Amino acid sequence: MVVKLTYFAMPGLGEPIRLMLAVTKTEFEDIRVGKEEWQKLKPTLKLPYLPMVEMDGKTLFQSMAVCRHIARKAGLYGSSEDEALEIDVTVDTLEDMRKHTVSHYYQPDSEERDQGMKKSVDVTIPFFLKLFDKQLEENKGYLVAGKLSWADILFLSHCDYLSSLFHVDILADFPKLKEYQQKIADLPGIKEWLEKRPPTPEDCRIFFS
Amino acid sequence: MVVKLTYFAMPGLGEPIRLMLAVTKTEFEDIRVGKEEWQKLKPTLKLPYLPMVEMDGKTLFQSMAVCRHIARKAGLYGSSEDEALEIDVTVDTLEDMRKHTVSHYYQPDSEERDQGMKKSVDVTIPFFLKLFDKQLEENKGYLVAGKLSWADILFLSHCDYLSSLFHVDILADFPKLKEYQQKIADLPGIKEWLEKRPPTPEDCRIFFS
Repeated sequence: MVVKLTYFAMPGLGEPIRLMLAVTKTEFEDIRVGKEEWQKLKPTLKLPYLPMVEMDGKTLFQSMAVCRHIARKAGLYGSSEDEALEIDVTVDTLEDMRKHTVSHYYQPDSEERDQGMKKSVDVTIPFFLKLFDKQLEENKGYLVAGKLSWADILFLSHCDYLSSLFHVDILADFPKLKEYQQKIADLPGIKEWLEKRPPTPEDCRIFFS
Repeated sequence: MVVKLTYFAMPGLGEPIRLMLAVTKTEFEDIRVGKEEWQKLKPTLKLPYLPMVEMDGKTLFQSMAVCRHIARKAGLYGSSEDEALEIDVTVDTLEDMRKHTVSHYYQPDSEERDQGMKKSVDVTIPFFLKLFDKQLEENKGYLVAGKLSWADILFLSHCDYLSSLFHVDILADFPKLKEYQQKIADLPGIKEWLEKRPPTPEDCRIFFS
């Protein structure tokens, strides 16, 4: 049975799973819902959020849990408990970078929103990127243990998503991270997905407003 | 070397780690900081948040990543990839219950805060508890696979924390969850920790206001 992924027509928390499926060459049906479809679908679900993934005979919620599952099966979760720990810390820190910034983005238009978005781009995102830049240096071109893990896929997904939301290349001042992002984007499976995926809407708030 | 855990003098995101150390009978130094100590400590850290854990020769941040690490080493992360997946989904859902409610609690006094807290207690928390109640029924007295996992420890931690914050027993209307919470609280290691730990402050906002 082909994997089915249901999410909004944007990157968000669906894209990490899409990229994990792409890098593991797993065929999937990319079901994208708009605001009205979502309002109808929401009350029928066990948990009132997306993404929802139908795979391995199960209906799964929770984006990060699904990524962990795919990573474990594909050998992208490190080769030891220590590597798994480093991956988990990195993933949680990438999630922090996302949460502390999109919380401003998904506000209604206001001066407060503008200020929060400016702080995200000028302060919060560079703070986290400096950490990842150092980590890349210490781990021979990947985020953990000098080899590909699902932390690298999440880095690509979140940096790409935040650049889309804030209409700015968040990696512009980080040439090594930029080169590394391109290396991950060029991986077999990922490259084809990035070429064929639909564009991100100009304003991603349309699904929730 | 004894494990050192540095966190605020309250449950929050420190308590899941304290309980994981307690249930695995790991001796630890429970370093509790107040607001002023935190302001001095914050700029010296790699990541500007707590808890910080010194263990296995490393200085670790990210509460959930540290719990996963302890769980893996102690055999509390399931016996198969499928069980690990169920644990991950449960953990993320417990985290959702916490995040969607404490976000209201940690606001300054206002009518909006009162309304958010009321909605947390009357609607949001019961919504999640109904899911866990069903899950308990389906998994023979535990949250996953009929046996103890770190999801059960996180359930105890988060329910206890939310009851403290909102000054109400959030499990009062869920007798089976209440009985189950007591079973986890009575586990060797946990029981001793709960008896000796310092009390939770009346208002946990004191560390951040």
